[in-house]
Amino acid sequence: MKSVVWQSLTEEQRESALERPAITEGANITAAVSDVINKVRTQGDNALLELTEKFDGVRPESIRVSQEEIDAASERLSEKMKQALEQAYTNISLFHKAQIPQPVKVETQPGVVCEQVTRPINKVGLYIPGGSAPLPSTVLMLGVPAQIAGCQKVVLCSPPPIADEILYVAKLCNIDEVYNIGGGQAVAAMAYGTETVTKVDKIFGPGNAYVTEAKRQVSNDFRGAAIDMPAGPSEVMVIADDSAKADFIAADLLSQAEHGPDSQVVLVTPSAELGERVADAVQAQLKELSRAEIAEKALASSLIVIADSIEQCVAISNYYGPEHLIVQTRDPRALLPELDNAGSIFLGDWSPESAGDYASGTNHVLPTYGYTRTYSSLGLADFSKRMTVQELSADGLKGLAPTVVTMAEAEGLDAHKRAVTIRVEALEKGE
Amino acid sequence: MKSVVWQSLTEEQRESALERPAITEGANITAAVSDVINKVRTQGDNALLELTEKFDGVRPESIRVSQEEIDAASERLSEKMKQALEQAYTNISLFHKAQIPQPVKVETQPGVVCEQVTRPINKVGLYIPGGSAPLPSTVLMLGVPAQIAGCQKVVLCSPPPIADEILYVAKLCNIDEVYNIGGGQAVAAMAYGTETVTKVDKIFGPGNAYVTEAKRQVSNDFRGAAIDMPAGPSEVMVIADDSAKADFIAADLLSQAEHGPDSQVVLVTPSAELGERVADAVQAQLKELSRAEIAEKALASSLIVIADSIEQCVAISNYYGPEHLIVQTRDPRALLPELDNAGSIFLGDWSPESAGDYASGTNHVLPTYGYTRTYSSLGLADFSKRMTVQELSADGLKGLAPTVVTMAEAEGLDAHKRAVTIRVEALEKGE
Repeated sequence: MKSVVWQSLTEEQRESALERPAITEGANITAAVSDVINKVRTQGDNALLELTEKFDGVRPESIRVSQEEIDAASERLSEKMKQALEQAYTNISLFHKAQIPQPVKVETQPGVVCEQVTRPINKVGLYIPGGSAPLPSTVLMLGVPAQIAGCQKVVLCSPPPIADEILYVAKLCNIDEVYNIGGGQAVAAMAYGTETVTKVDKIFGPGNAYVTEAKRQVSNDFRGAAIDMPAGPSEVMVIADDSAKADFIAADLLSQAEHGPDSQVVLVTPSAELGERVADAVQAQLKELSRAEIAEKALASSLIVIADSIEQCVAISNYYGPEHLIVQTRDPRALLPELDNAGSIFLGDWSPESAGDYASGTNHVLPTYGYTRTYSSLGLADFSKRMTVQELSADGLKGLAPTVVTMAEAEGLDAHKRAVTIRVEALEKGE
Repeated sequence: MKSVVWQSLTEEQRESALERPAITEGANITAAVSDVINKVRTQGDNALLELTEKFDGVRPESIRVSQEEIDAASERLSEKMKQALEQAYTNISLFHKAQIPQPVKVETQPGVVCEQVTRPINKVGLYIPGGSAPLPSTVLMLGVPAQIAGCQKVVLCSPPPIADEILYVAKLCNIDEVYNIGGGQAVAAMAYGTETVTKVDKIFGPGNAYVTEAKRQVSNDFRGAAIDMPAGPSEVMVIADDSAKADFIAADLLSQAEHGPDSQVVLVTPSAELGERVADAVQAQLKELSRAEIAEKALASSLIVIADSIEQCVAISNYYGPEHLIVQTRDPRALLPELDNAGSIFLGDWSPESAGDYASGTNHVLPTYGYTRTYSSLGLADFSKRMTVQELSADGLKGLAPTVVTMAEAEGLDAHKRAVTIRVEALEKGE
């Protein structure tokens, strides 16, 4: 792992040290995805079957997974696996239920009552990537908040064959429909609907470059669907002082590095000596990993930053804005009020990122790539929308009328003024 | 106003009756805006001065409005105007302060504590359009939540000359910097920064097709800035029964119609007789408006829908998803639990839209064009972001370990498992 001393860098060197690699989607991905979307919009289910055969190498018997198949999956799973998934489900449910907002109701001036009410987004689509191993944890992270928000229709797409773990969690989360479809074609199907696939209002979930580009394209079309948040490579930053255990930190850095060769991994510490021990521990642990090759590629662009102080570590983290931030210092909670621009924060020696990735209760769908400055950790709010309500009494309107009339005059909007004066005149006439 | 009887329409006719006009931004707008953005990024302040001279016909003495100019504006305003703006400021502040979220903290299983914390978005930019009349109300709607959220830096752009009302509200809201810049060049300046203009994290506010396109472009660039929500023409839907007053409804429809020729105006009622009276009242009131020409254009595409029942009116509204929804029925509050997909709801005879446009306390920046299905009324949440936090005790981690290990094994992620087992082993060794 490369190491830099922050204090010795110029402003430009600092920016460059923490700069994220540019995401350069070729124009060919844009065009290929646009073709796939057009095909799905015009040819519906036929296009889905054809594209699935082409990209996933299987032509599923049916696009929709039947209830029998879902039930059969649950019978094949071990009790141990079911218990683990249920424990994670319980914890994630508890944390997301705690996010149910308080109703807001205020009488701003006599007779003028303003409210904020929350409603579930009606129809949501969850995308679960395929790949070498199934990702039931992502089904939990999307399915649980959709269930708690009360979305009327929740559908799930994943490339076939869909693993038993995914089907089991889909059942736990009461997902209405599961489809054997992946890639850009799945995103297109959920955004526009086909004979079989329900059109949804918003699409959630991670995916490869094609899925990401498809989400971008359908979210730029008002007839398409909204999406959860912009995507980017996964990241972890660790802030640690000399009280931290080097092998714990190394394990945390590696658990990020194994995600993919583009994973970003940064340690920030005021202790150069800890930095060296962590670098050694990473090398030692790396050898034992089945995904060592992937992790090694990610580590090639990883970084150890030696800072002047813990305060400077915090400033560096707030500037970088990491997706995951692990704090292993003598008193990690004392730093929390100063921490900003992070997706999810892990406090102390006993809070590894993998706890949150799977089962502590927090969501693992997080803003990355610097989007932590403006986007939030996925939560109940993303499956809901807020509407405002106002109710004025006759006296309330009379009291507010002079303010509205004066402002409407200033803005040159006669009819706005008239909507108030016509009512006040009616009141004065005793109508 | 055109009138249709819902029950007599086919499914397709219904869709077509409520279909919004397509927004067709020419490729020339896209290219022109892209040029402007490039110019601002490469030439900074010089480009801003040049483009302002070109598009707004004035070359401001300085890009930033000085404190003296802001103070002078407040001295020129009438007491009546200042009082109106202050009353609106007070009401909007009260309603947005009530939106400050409760902290979320849950022990999901023994020793596993999960939290959700909220932080202000650090730097925000507010765009206030120019035009025939100043829009101080929009400054309130953006400036008040930015102030309450605690954003560290709030900047405002508006084309010169900036009206006294706008400068006065900027002062009320404690806005840090005000710039004499409008159009796509203002959006570019805030998204990327110039010598004078502060780069911001997120840009808010309405604007013409160029501003909208510039917001879209900078929000699609991760080096740019996030934006509040997608834009579209303004809309009102009124649900009314035969207890409603036709002239009130007509005034409300016209106050939407005067916004612009593309405004959408729809009345839904089970009473054909009320529909006729409203159509007559609209014609009568139209004549007296200074913006009658604009309103008349909007009314050309407006609609009265005669429904079978109030329940059907509600279903039509939920399907259409109006930006503003006015409910003038015998018991409007009884309908609230069934109402969905609306930006802001106005209950009863004494709650005209203009109350909320200016001063009741609710925000007038609302999703429109059907985006009410997934987007929220602008609120405090849009000026903040949510981060999650977790802290596990040693025992907490031991209790959670089997779940994490089982799931990491299923997902084939060794290092994720190892980050947990290395800690549990250390505990067992008594380290």
